[in-house]
Amino acid sequence: MSEGDLKGYLAEARELALGEIRSLIPRDQQAQRSLYDLMLDYPLRDAKGLRPALCIAACRAQGGQLQAVAPTAAVLELYHNAFLIHDDIEDQSELRRGQPTLHLQHGVPIAVNVGDAMLALALQPLLDNTRLLGLGRSLRILQSVAHMVTLSVEGQALELDWIAARKWDVSDADYCEMVVKKTGWYSFITPVLVGAIAAGTTSPDLARLADFARSLSVGFQIQDDILNLEQGRGEYGKEFAGDLWEGKRTLMLLHALRQATAEERRAAEAVLSKARPRSPIAPEVGAGLASCIDRLVAEGQLSPRGREALRSAALQGALQEAKQASDVDQLLELIRKYGSMQYAREHAQSWVERAAVALREWAAPLEDSQHLRFLFGVLNYVLARTR
Amino acid sequence: MSEGDLKGYLAEARELALGEIRSLIPRDQQAQRSLYDLMLDYPLRDAKGLRPALCIAACRAQGGQLQAVAPTAAVLELYHNAFLIHDDIEDQSELRRGQPTLHLQHGVPIAVNVGDAMLALALQPLLDNTRLLGLGRSLRILQSVAHMVTLSVEGQALELDWIAARKWDVSDADYCEMVVKKTGWYSFITPVLVGAIAAGTTSPDLARLADFARSLSVGFQIQDDILNLEQGRGEYGKEFAGDLWEGKRTLMLLHALRQATAEERRAAEAVLSKARPRSPIAPEVGAGLASCIDRLVAEGQLSPRGREALRSAALQGALQEAKQASDVDQLLELIRKYGSMQYAREHAQSWVERAAVALREWAAPLEDSQHLRFLFGVLNYVLARTR
Repeated sequence: MSEGDLKGYLAEARELALGEIRSLIPRDQQAQRSLYDLMLDYPLRDAKGLRPALCIAACRAQGGQLQAVAPTAAVLELYHNAFLIHDDIEDQSELRRGQPTLHLQHGVPIAVNVGDAMLALALQPLLDNTRLLGLGRSLRILQSVAHMVTLSVEGQALELDWIAARKWDVSDADYCEMVVKKTGWYSFITPVLVGAIAAGTTSPDLARLADFARSLSVGFQIQDDILNLEQGRGEYGKEFAGDLWEGKRTLMLLHALRQATAEERRAAEAVLSKARPRSPIAPEVGAGLASCIDRLVAEGQLSPRGREALRSAALQGALQEAKQASDVDQLLELIRKYGSMQYAREHAQSWVERAAVALREWAAPLEDSQHLRFLFGVLNYVLARTR
Repeated sequence: MSEGDLKGYLAEARELALGEIRSLIPRDQQAQRSLYDLMLDYPLRDAKGLRPALCIAACRAQGGQLQAVAPTAAVLELYHNAFLIHDDIEDQSELRRGQPTLHLQHGVPIAVNVGDAMLALALQPLLDNTRLLGLGRSLRILQSVAHMVTLSVEGQALELDWIAARKWDVSDADYCEMVVKKTGWYSFITPVLVGAIAAGTTSPDLARLADFARSLSVGFQIQDDILNLEQGRGEYGKEFAGDLWEGKRTLMLLHALRQATAEERRAAEAVLSKARPRSPIAPEVGAGLASCIDRLVAEGQLSPRGREALRSAALQGALQEAKQASDVDQLLELIRKYGSMQYAREHAQSWVERAAVALREWAAPLEDSQHLRFLFGVLNYVLARTR
């Protein structure tokens, strides 16, 4: 499948999911407009539509109907965006799809609630599936989704635990476990599994299909880690080297830390233990403090030189133990020195090849279709994409 | 039913729900212990067990079996505690059941994720209900729970919107709508409805039962508002006048604002628009700033008197536009002046009477049982309780 066709397939799946999501949102004036409008904020940003596309393709490649899978595909997009809202709070991310994250725009309280609202709304179409797919398939899809959500929060907890414990001796296997739990299940494995369930596939096939999706998810995440250090801010939609500023465990950082000398490693961990710089003092406090400092100068209690020292200390965050650009450069240098980008590229490639083997086995008995070609196309897309 | 019997009924329901919740939590070492241990934090605090007790009583008063309703009752306790975790973040609450809130103890990222994990875990027993109750009843319970979660987030959004818009002209009817959505559904209405569904009740009965629960929920919340201004910190488990510090819309505050002169109202709204006081500067910043101030004194750039002024300004938050104890006293005075506590007590009483009428109608065809007596006992308990 050509790149253009693949992007067309993705765009169509995204439009379909958006339409379904819109139809879920109550229209009456009694409903909380602010809440329901904000639920569309992330989905309407320039998303890829990967999850609904994988779900639809897995269903239709086996002869399933589009209408049988459409609501379920939309639900996955809804879960994805709900997780993004909560993850952005948990990871203290600042940019999402080229715009400030929801909690930066509307505050943590509203962002937590909008995420919860999306999780709540996602249940209804899965219950309505009984009319569309019958009880057996509907319940299997519900079971799959419940399992998916549980694993996603476990993956998130695993990463948060590493952060809390300042744990940096994370093996590639640990990294893969975290990635598969945190994003693999809801982004790849469950989409293809529930697509297949909607089409009526039986169990042995599901194992191979899950294997394809699991391997692909690791390749995808490693490529995501790579893009974060390769792309400029505008094109990529996230912050350049944002992962290093956040202190995220990425495959190349973990590799560089393992290769580093004891001294380099100590220095890198010291940098990584620093917070990312934020305005250290709330604006109203800063303003009050500045006027207090001015008053002390006027009263002769503080010299003008002293004022400058305090102002820069208090207001520009110089006293906060936060990362500097030079700290991030030091980490980048370590990653360069030990060829960790190349290491990550090779691993991404090898996970995608493993995914290809599983996909070929699963697809062997199936007739050729654009849906099957899309799934094969995703193998290349994962590594070729620039965002 | 005597107070002792009622408390025994509540305690038994709470123990049962806790046992079910414990059985849901994965035991293997692969699972994220930190995540699953934190899921028990709020449920193990000294909770009332009201929701599982209402659910069990509504089921058994109609001849339903305990085992038919136990998992569903536990799920309600799980939802309740998940909502509390997220609400505490959204309302910036500091105390929950006599201890610091989860996000104060473990940070917002972990608390958001633990709440999500509890919402995820709550799905499984509802799916397993199919084996216990058959498909029809199980799906009706799932529908009820999905509806409940949707209304709860709408209620939360309604309140967050009022806060964002600094809206204080809130009528009693608006207040009741918010209360019923935010806590009424998940605390009262859904517990009795799903209890009845588990027992196999038909629709007309459900309307009367829902009416009982809806009225009771408003009476309960008004009493909660009253307790917040009557009880000391230790006994009540929340902060005395915490609602006023948080700027929560309570029935008596809204009444006092309506009765106040234009000038009083302006002054009260000015107080209410102030944030609650928090440590204005992160500890590490404060420490750095303090050592910078000391250095300036040592260098003769800052007088010792200036140092004291700056230290108290910077470190004790005196410059933040935050509520003071005198501000809260001013609001308390307004509430006293206009008899708003009495107004609230009368309203709580009248909602409970309305609940009693609905309960008597619903109960008319039922045989006497301790479960029915518990439901009647709850009518008194709601107003007589001290926490």
